[in-house]
Amino acid sequence: MELKIALLAGDGIGPEVIEQAVKVSDAVAKKFNHKITWVPALTGAAAIDAVGDPYPDETHDICASSDAVLFGAIGHPRFDNDPSAKVRPEQGLLKMRKKLGLFANVRPTFTFPSLIDKSPLKRERIEGTDLVFLRELTGGIYFGKKGREQNGDVAYDHCVYSKDEVRRLAKKGFEMAMTRGKKLCCVDKANVLETSRLWRETVQAMEKDYPEVEVSYEFVDAVAMRLVQWPNSYDVLITENLFGDILTDEASVISGSMGLMPSASVGSKVSLFEPIHGSYPQAAGKNIANPLATVLSAAMMFETGFGLNDEGAAIREVVNKSLSEGIVTEDLADGEKSYGTSEVGDWLAQNI
Amino acid sequence: MELKIALLAGDGIGPEVIEQAVKVSDAVAKKFNHKITWVPALTGAAAIDAVGDPYPDETHDICASSDAVLFGAIGHPRFDNDPSAKVRPEQGLLKMRKKLGLFANVRPTFTFPSLIDKSPLKRERIEGTDLVFLRELTGGIYFGKKGREQNGDVAYDHCVYSKDEVRRLAKKGFEMAMTRGKKLCCVDKANVLETSRLWRETVQAMEKDYPEVEVSYEFVDAVAMRLVQWPNSYDVLITENLFGDILTDEASVISGSMGLMPSASVGSKVSLFEPIHGSYPQAAGKNIANPLATVLSAAMMFETGFGLNDEGAAIREVVNKSLSEGIVTEDLADGEKSYGTSEVGDWLAQNI
Ligand SMILES: CC(C)[C@H](C(=O)O)[C@@H](O)C(=O)O
Ligand SMILES: CC(C)[C@H](C(=O)O)[C@@H](O)C(=O)O
Repeated sequence: MELKIALLAGDGIGPEVIEQAVKVSDAVAKKFNHKITWVPALTGAAAIDAVGDPYPDETHDICASSDAVLFGAIGHPRFDNDPSAKVRPEQGLLKMRKKLGLFANVRPTFTFPSLIDKSPLKRERIEGTDLVFLRELTGGIYFGKKGREQNGDVAYDHCVYSKDEVRRLAKKGFEMAMTRGKKLCCVDKANVLETSRLWRETVQAMEKDYPEVEVSYEFVDAVAMRLVQWPNSYDVLITENLFGDILTDEASVISGSMGLMPSASVGSKVSLFEPIHGSYPQAAGKNIANPLATVLSAAMMFETGFGLNDEGAAIREVVNKSLSEGIVTEDLADGEKSYGTSEVGDWLAQNI
Repeated sequence: MELKIALLAGDGIGPEVIEQAVKVSDAVAKKFNHKITWVPALTGAAAIDAVGDPYPDETHDICASSDAVLFGAIGHPRFDNDPSAKVRPEQGLLKMRKKLGLFANVRPTFTFPSLIDKSPLKRERIEGTDLVFLRELTGGIYFGKKGREQNGDVAYDHCVYSKDEVRRLAKKGFEMAMTRGKKLCCVDKANVLETSRLWRETVQAMEKDYPEVEVSYEFVDAVAMRLVQWPNSYDVLITENLFGDILTDEASVISGSMGLMPSASVGSKVSLFEPIHGSYPQAAGKNIANPLATVLSAAMMFETGFGLNDEGAAIREVVNKSLSEGIVTEDLADGEKSYGTSEVGDWLAQNI
């Protein structure tokens, strides 16, 4: 296959981890006889510095005309503690999600047998966990009207959802449940929020089309609890944008390291693949960041982006091998010998 | 002291657990020579059934003229899966919080040495945890305008905060930090939400008045993660209504059981004390619910409501004793002998 992939390294550790995913993808492409053309483009704080816009039109054009987007990380502390900043790196991410129509964020959470004891949760609680969140990504309070009133003394953010937005996300959830454990949990706060009641009634109306799927409705506060108590009781969870942001980060704890969890954002022609961790500025440039979440995002890209399952499996296999042989960055080394970001990437590429 | 306490049992297991807290409070009052007059009042689904309003005016008058309110639980599944229900038990709770001016919900999270191994989290992660959330309780998306448009196909909820609302909550947070570990974490989503940026700038402006307090600002998704990774790195956390709802429930997992965590809602003359667990309808009427969270809420009532610290300490002591002697409900019994809700209450009252 000839593949054109937009490469958005972004901020902080983004460039370093992306580099490793490129190495590994190239090795896979070589082995399976594909040709990848990488097209780098600016985003995030890096793009603000260069052209004043965290998601420039040029970047959008590159993404929109590619077969997939591989993304590093976005965000810089310089903007976080300046509530008056006019342009923020994160706006680039939001604009990109919206303009590319990426309305569903797919975040699997699973455990690695060789890492299970690194989780803050007890082994018996997490063994066998294999759940996936489908987070709505282009609606809700992230994209509603926001602003100030009364000389800046009052701030507001509007959360809005339409039945269509819920339906297209829920449809993906039901379909995914059919290919997995046939359980779907709709996470909302229907005892307080009108948008949640709209979610609930929309999903309820879809149940009859998927008679084999067992559907449950749980409040977001209860899920925040049960997710760390009994994660292996869940299969597919669907939820709105903000709840998904919070719960998927929480869920990443199960696997023992955020540095491992990949994600896919899907919805229209082009899909985007990115690690769920952030830009981790403290580690930037030190060759210590764990590249595995980005490498596993590349695996998702081959699988769900291009339908190339063997290629994805080859990446997963070499990642598992690196974990069991201890070719890992310091966050996973437990005081044993550790390797640099690029050494891990080299090892993975060589062992594909 | 002569104390008049409004008694709002509410729904589900509410009445059963409240009964035990009354027994224990009466025993403490007897020992320390106080006279408690309990004034029962209707709330929740029970009040809807009786008078069509989950927080009737009569109940409000009783609460407003009492020295404190002791509250059980609210909520009934009959309403949860009916998105079209016009009156909901939860509205009673929200109306009560608003009308009584209870703008701050204080939720301590700590571990019990005798229960530490019941937590889904590993001992070394949670040992020494002693944190407290201050959740804003009468603003934000819970109380903003909400409704439908376009024939019901679009729903909205407005999140609104004023600097004054943030300031009075943050003030309590700074003051509480001064009496504890002198660390304050402001939890927000300032990289996306305007209300969060207002929170952050308001708290930043207050820092200079509390030079001894070390203040940090963290995104809600990061806290959802760190809270289960390194809970003992936190001291006081302040946050808005919805984030607080999610994070405090998540935090309750640390102690090993939701059945243990008390809370206080404060803000004006009368304070309210309630367990953080819900109405747990599956267990209602079975004499199996754990009454300790409500009993410990009564301890908070003596301490922060009436300034009677010895009385509160006496309750905590007898609770600890019951835990170490195994006089516990089945949720804490680990397959060993367990006791009924009322037997635990009797034992506590007798051993005060
Ligand atoms: C960086 C931020 C805007 C973003 C979000 O909140 O969506 C991130 O936390 C994520 O989950 O991808
Ligand atoms: C019952 C519900 C409305 C309530 C809330 O969301 O505030 C509860 O979850 C709580 O935390 O006290």
